[in-house]
Amino acid sequence: MTDDSDIRPGETCLHHAPPEDAWLQFIGVIHTPFLTRADCPRQGRANGPVCEVEVFGPWAPALEGIDAFETIELLYWLDRSRRDLLTQSPKSDGRTVGTFALRSPVRPNPIGTARVRLERREGNRLLVRGLDCLDGTPLVDIKPDRCAFTPQAPDKPGVS
Amino acid sequence: MTDDSDIRPGETCLHHAPPEDAWLQFIGVIHTPFLTRADCPRQGRANGPVCEVEVFGPWAPALEGIDAFETIELLYWLDRSRRDLLTQSPKSDGRTVGTFALRSPVRPNPIGTARVRLERREGNRLLVRGLDCLDGTPLVDIKPDRCAFTPQAPDKPGVS
Repeated sequence: MTDDSDIRPGETCLHHAPPEDAWLQFIGVIHTPFLTRADCPRQGRANGPVCEVEVFGPWAPALEGIDAFETIELLYWLDRSRRDLLTQSPKSDGRTVGTFALRSPVRPNPIGTARVRLERREGNRLLVRGLDCLDGTPLVDIKPDRCAFTPQAPDKPGVS
Repeated sequence: MTDDSDIRPGETCLHHAPPEDAWLQFIGVIHTPFLTRADCPRQGRANGPVCEVEVFGPWAPALEGIDAFETIELLYWLDRSRRDLLTQSPKSDGRTVGTFALRSPVRPNPIGTARVRLERREGNRLLVRGLDCLDGTPLVDIKPDRCAFTPQAPDKPGVS
């Protein structure tokens, strides 16, 4: 985490051992046609290739009812990213911007989020369009999309 | 993680020790007026109260440039949630649905996501509207909103 050798001019990083405040369990793995970072689109596209979200066996029952949603949100672990950059230079020109002002995979907690279209479910596998991540990316969470969910979550009475 | 005493009729849970596949570092804390779960709205609202997102000192430089975005995405750790439920009964009526078909805080990796409106930045604090989480919720990530970000991320040449 303190390797300065491969950062770009102007980039800055933290130099302390990070705290381990909470842990994640991987609940599946994502299969995409993107085998290198250069293959990955900058962002997923609605008309992108069909990708396969494989949910590990023990969690398969938690998919019950997912078919009702056309759009779902996926969270995944960008496991090949360094985590210590404070500022980054996406264009390698020495001009930097803060990590939190970028959707770069390099971040203190490298979690990617995507809204994807659920094409269909086959058992414990979801076939989706709209992903941008590398093949083999660990899966962290699946949620109905906020927008898709809205009609099903009326306001609680008495809570503003 | 194997306490069945407080689950609702029909709910199911996992009974094995979960793997610790990756760890998170908390990068800040969220201050909201919601002190109990009953206070929390089911979802954040654009016209909800102003909440304060406090970024811990070491990560403050990573906020550089965030002011350019009107809408940002926040990820936070729902630290008071159990993590072992496969199916849940939101209405406590014995009818269950899979955890991944709900936006419940109870999930294997209890990460909340919200799109919020950035009202203003004051140093290492962001004042935002649109949150639904409890006061004191640990902050995990800040990203420009996907939609807000789109115009700044043209397609890479040669990548479909």
